[in-house]
Amino acid sequence: MWVCALWEARAPALLRRRRLLPARGLRPPAAASFSASAEGSRVRALVYGHHGHPTKVVELKNLELAAVGGSDVHVKMLAAPINPSDINMIQGNYGLLPPLPAVGGNEGVGQVVAVGSNVTGVKPGDWVIPATAGLGTWRTEAVFSEEALISVPSNIPLQSAATLGVNPCTAYRMLKDFEQLQPGDSVIQNASNSGVGQAVIQIAAALGLRTINVVRDRPDLQKLTDRLKKLGAEQVVTEEELRTHEMKNVFKDMPQPRLALNGVGGKSSTELLRHLAPGGTMVTYGGMAKQPVIASVSQLIFKDLKLRGFWLSQWKKDHSPGPAAAAPLSDFLHPPTDQFKELILTLCDLIHRGQLTAPACSEVPLQDYQCALEASMQPFLSAKQILNM
Amino acid sequence: MWVCALWEARAPALLRRRRLLPARGLRPPAAASFSASAEGSRVRALVYGHHGHPTKVVELKNLELAAVGGSDVHVKMLAAPINPSDINMIQGNYGLLPPLPAVGGNEGVGQVVAVGSNVTGVKPGDWVIPATAGLGTWRTEAVFSEEALISVPSNIPLQSAATLGVNPCTAYRMLKDFEQLQPGDSVIQNASNSGVGQAVIQIAAALGLRTINVVRDRPDLQKLTDRLKKLGAEQVVTEEELRTHEMKNVFKDMPQPRLALNGVGGKSSTELLRHLAPGGTMVTYGGMAKQPVIASVSQLIFKDLKLRGFWLSQWKKDHSPGPAAAAPLSDFLHPPTDQFKELILTLCDLIHRGQLTAPACSEVPLQDYQCALEASMQPFLSAKQILNM
Repeated sequence: MWVCALWEARAPALLRRRRLLPARGLRPPAAASFSASAEGSRVRALVYGHHGHPTKVVELKNLELAAVGGSDVHVKMLAAPINPSDINMIQGNYGLLPPLPAVGGNEGVGQVVAVGSNVTGVKPGDWVIPATAGLGTWRTEAVFSEEALISVPSNIPLQSAATLGVNPCTAYRMLKDFEQLQPGDSVIQNASNSGVGQAVIQIAAALGLRTINVVRDRPDLQKLTDRLKKLGAEQVVTEEELRTHEMKNVFKDMPQPRLALNGVGGKSSTELLRHLAPGGTMVTYGGMAKQPVIASVSQLIFKDLKLRGFWLSQWKKDHSPGPAAAAPLSDFLHPPTDQFKELILTLCDLIHRGQLTAPACSEVPLQDYQCALEASMQPFLSAKQILNM
Repeated sequence: MWVCALWEARAPALLRRRRLLPARGLRPPAAASFSASAEGSRVRALVYGHHGHPTKVVELKNLELAAVGGSDVHVKMLAAPINPSDINMIQGNYGLLPPLPAVGGNEGVGQVVAVGSNVTGVKPGDWVIPATAGLGTWRTEAVFSEEALISVPSNIPLQSAATLGVNPCTAYRMLKDFEQLQPGDSVIQNASNSGVGQAVIQIAAALGLRTINVVRDRPDLQKLTDRLKKLGAEQVVTEEELRTHEMKNVFKDMPQPRLALNGVGGKSSTELLRHLAPGGTMVTYGGMAKQPVIASVSQLIFKDLKLRGFWLSQWKKDHSPGPAAAAPLSDFLHPPTDQFKELILTLCDLIHRGQLTAPACSEVPLQDYQCALEASMQPFLSAKQILNM
């Protein structure tokens, strides 16, 4: 297991601090405490002034809280994860890059402290998540435009709320928007232990879809396999097993997948294409291997395979009302649409039914962000880092 | 210019024979001569008994003409081209492989000599082309099922009729079925001097679409450029020019293409992807470079590029009525659908209007098939080989 050097050096203090937190699931402070924090409190935020290696360019800084305008919402952030896309954004390798200096983080959940006079959609005490990318969620408090937020029920686990707005949305849309799948149909994916991967397994199972889940081989493979199967995975295979002839046995009992979800690229995606049914679609949403997707000409022509990509920010923009849809994506702010609100409600419904849980998480206090950033970039670390504000 | 060694050795005889043919456009013998040829005539055919290099495995043989059954049509072949897909089929590198021994050739035009008692769609004297792949068109005569044929007007040039059933159909469907293009929109393609490429240029121009046509650099580039521009090409650029910064000047005057047509693969297709507009589609229909198609993860995710393939045989099958659509593609025989007949009529209409001409062709007598096969596999040979029966 990877252990951050910083953690080891500061272990006693950290362990004391961590014991204050419950073992599973973050608990927010009571709503009452927020009004106090609104009074001239110090806002701490993880800020980067230029692109580079996250642990080198991200700093914990004190910021001024902006005044709450008529259409604004004062939010106390509760928890915010570190996603691969946050890392890529800091590195400068992402499709959207906020102006610098910027606060890191695109996902998370906060509680409303106060609202401007024109705000009608949320009220103090409500839980909110970002409706768009680029808000900067790694901070203790912020003033956001009401349009940049979407409310979520506060009776779902905090970890679920903190990790709801990107990965499960991506997983749901990829399962729904590319191939018309029916219960009993199968889906193959790589990066099955990623945030998206775990959401795919659960949402697919809820939709009656059967999943073949590819993971990298690792020392604790059986443990991972058991965990993913508990989430609803039908098959868990390693990248190496996927290349063997024995894979044909898998397809004796289940139909060949018409949908492949690729978060890796390179050789891994080549194997997904090989196992796709004729006419099937591979949707790429990530490129952890930092290698391109390669398709043979005959796979495209004779097998009629379709290669597509999915980016939630683009989906949100494409589903925005008129003017927002026409604006450049780099404008960031696209008010949440009815479709996005409906998607969030659908996912919350799955959470309420116990069909969608948060990915395996490690909670880390905000000030220990260096360890959390390092951890988020380690291979085989089977837990999403969640910053606790 | 490439000159077949066999041609040089046999030059005097060949030249004499070739002088018997008109300089442009094959002329069929008068319909009256066909009834004579039907009487126990010797059928000559280019046959291959196993897969391999075409000039090694293809032989000119005498075949028996099958009896004409009630639903059959006796056809005297007039002319048949050598397409890259014919070569691939002989080599065994194709999505459909007929049982061996097989007669080569998938395209061509013939004239009906006689029909069975149940045949109602064609009559002696009509021109017909294959409705499906795998019929074996490189022969002087054949008996085909009526279902395997589709009639074409006999008042179009013979070269056009002989080359109508595959390449222009592929070009038309690719321009129509993947992106909804409007007059003024642009299309980029490589292999622009191929049979498909020349058809794309002309059909696109007829549809009001502007084309950027990529070709390989060659000694007679200006001549090729002039010829393609005469067909309707707006821009003709070399693979090397496509990689330079100057390409941005091209897009000052025309919109970025939303459709790219790829008959090459490898680096050439990488460049097409680079020039596609966000959200655009690249359709692969050939792989002359024998290299796969490579797309970066960010092109798929952030640029939302779509990679597809097109295969006319699959399109025909997908548009077949119920049972034929469900049959394996390897069954070959899918009766021509209304959609395919309509497509042929549309293309004949373009031919009548002078908007679609046959690709640059070299006519070769059937017995000189060795030279024609060699020539069809040479790079930069700017003429399609058409076997004259």
